Amino acid sequence: MMDLHAVTGGNRLALSRLLTEVENETETGRASLDRLFVNSGRAHLVGITGSPGTGKSSLVSCLARQIRREYQKTVAIVAIDPSSPFTGGAILGDRVRMRDLAGDPGVFIRSMASRGALGGLARSTAGVVQVLDAAGFDLILIETVGAGQSEVDIARLAHTTIVIEAPGLGDDIQAIKAGILEIADILVINKADMPGVENTERALRANLDLGHSPRMNHNAAHMISAGEDDTAEQEGWMPPVLRTIATQASGIEEVVEVIFSHRAYLQQTGLWQHRDHERLRAEVGHLLQNALMQRWQKTVPAERYEAVMQQVFDRKISPGSAINNLVNGGNNL
Amino acid sequence: MMDLHAVTGGNRLALSRLLTEVENETETGRASLDRLFVNSGRAHLVGITGSPGTGKSSLVSCLARQIRREYQKTVAIVAIDPSSPFTGGAILGDRVRMRDLAGDPGVFIRSMASRGALGGLARSTAGVVQVLDAAGFDLILIETVGAGQSEVDIARLAHTTIVIEAPGLGDDIQAIKAGILEIADILVINKADMPGVENTERALRANLDLGHSPRMNHNAAHMISAGEDDTAEQEGWMPPVLRTIATQASGIEEVVEVIFSHRAYLQQTGLWQHRDHERLRAEVGHLLQNALMQRWQKTVPAERYEAVMQQVFDRKISPGSAINNLVNGGNNL
Repeated sequence: MMDLHAVTGGNRLALSRLLTEVENETETGRASLDRLFVNSGRAHLVGITGSPGTGKSSLVSCLARQIRREYQKTVAIVAIDPSSPFTGGAILGDRVRMRDLAGDPGVFIRSMASRGALGGLARSTAGVVQVLDAAGFDLILIETVGAGQSEVDIARLAHTTIVIEAPGLGDDIQAIKAGILEIADILVINKADMPGVENTERALRANLDLGHSPRMNHNAAHMISAGEDDTAEQEGWMPPVLRTIATQASGIEEVVEVIFSHRAYLQQTGLWQHRDHERLRAEVGHLLQNALMQRWQKTVPAERYEAVMQQVFDRKISPGSAINNLVNGGNNL
Repeated sequence: MMDLHAVTGGNRLALSRLLTEVENETETGRASLDRLFVNSGRAHLVGITGSPGTGKSSLVSCLARQIRREYQKTVAIVAIDPSSPFTGGAILGDRVRMRDLAGDPGVFIRSMASRGALGGLARSTAGVVQVLDAAGFDLILIETVGAGQSEVDIARLAHTTIVIEAPGLGDDIQAIKAGILEIADILVINKADMPGVENTERALRANLDLGHSPRMNHNAAHMISAGEDDTAEQEGWMPPVLRTIATQASGIEEVVEVIFSHRAYLQQTGLWQHRDHERLRAEVGHLLQNALMQRWQKTVPAERYEAVMQQVFDRKISPGSAINNLVNGGNNL
């Protein structure tokens, strides 16, 4: 059993060890998560997503430094992008910035090992974030690479989602396609000293005007409950478009101010709680599916399952009949 | 009960009616799917995916016409892209091409109504494809818009996946990000008379060389079985990159030839059967999850579920304890 008092008391080594257990989904990790859960629910979770080449990691460093300096809040950074300098692939300038941050006891940096299945990554990221939350960090910055559904799932962990673009990456098109704009609470155009910044901003604003709708709700757990009021996610926050040059620490104050305004907006409107509940419903829904599958697997021998699948492969029985046979106790094998 | 003999006997009205039942996931639709399943498993399923602007629908028309003319095989087209001319948003030239196809009794065109959740769309598409397969069509062309995980799920239905690009869309970057190249068996650069075609081809080939690996296996059903030999998906087919100009019907013969070569490759290597089994495992896995969830929901009143969720929201119990309580019969409420 882990020493959880050490974790909540600020012992960084104990925290790191626990995060490894949680990442590896060990029994100890799971039991510790369960016990720490009562301490969670206080941190402001900020998802930061953007394509490679947008300067995302530099921006995350700048944001962390600004939050420390001007607001004296503690910050944890969770880096999921495998190409992120936080996870090792740093150029020198980045490394200097990271080291600078790493010397601050109010900052904790965790890079997630790259796992095969992004679904699994999203799951263990949720656990890591929950531990950091329970450990008392005021803000948790979750850096993801920003492509596809799995990233959107990770972004859905957050109270506030920042989407980073940069001029000249063709990302105006890319963003629309991937549905990334739908999840953005704040849009940042980094590298704003590069040519094409006006075009990027124009494309982003046009897409915002056209397509912005409140966060979509693809919550899997919703199928088992209608207790939540989805209409709580109403218009009212129009994502601002901000320009930064992270390498010169330019425009950073405004981004941090908007992060805190968004927090105030969420709390005033009840959306803070709504997103928290939505997140927990999704988590319980996933755990429930897994638990039901595991319980069922114990009752049905693998050979029986394979025999039924073979009949499906041979087109002797349909998938629907297979389920009838396997779950509802049909015995027509 | 539907007249399924009419469906398998070539009655188009009966087929259309049944597809509507299947799309709407009615009881009749499900029962008919079950009964028709024994007739399925013969069609060559070809997924065709590409961004808006690549001229995908024109290309699909050309492919269908060529397959009819040179190979005398019957063709069904399933259009999922809501912006596809097959689903109504056609410009005049496209409409003429469609009408031309629609007059051929060996061609059947079905456009899927746009549904809110793409997950649901993927599910009902699988059903629609199964019916068309059982109805005896030799090839089924499944046209999707090509962005994100849900499209990848739909593409995974197919034996052969064609990814369409066009010059000047910034798609070289987009394709890599969305993981689309990983699922491509054939790459087509349409609008090959437009400037930038060399760049697009170079980018595609570079990415193929770097990153091509056999189809990834994200099969959800694999967690409940290890009966299949995943190593069957080996290197051996390097996706060819072909150029077409669909509006001039140029390059179409080559694409159709490669579709048939790919079919021969799949059959010679056993991959044809492997992909069929993989698809059926995924389908049974999904049905199983739903069945287990439904069975469980009948045993647990919604009020009890909500009461447990409220305790999670209040941080009185963890998600893990909630599952313990709900599934494993814990009674500590």
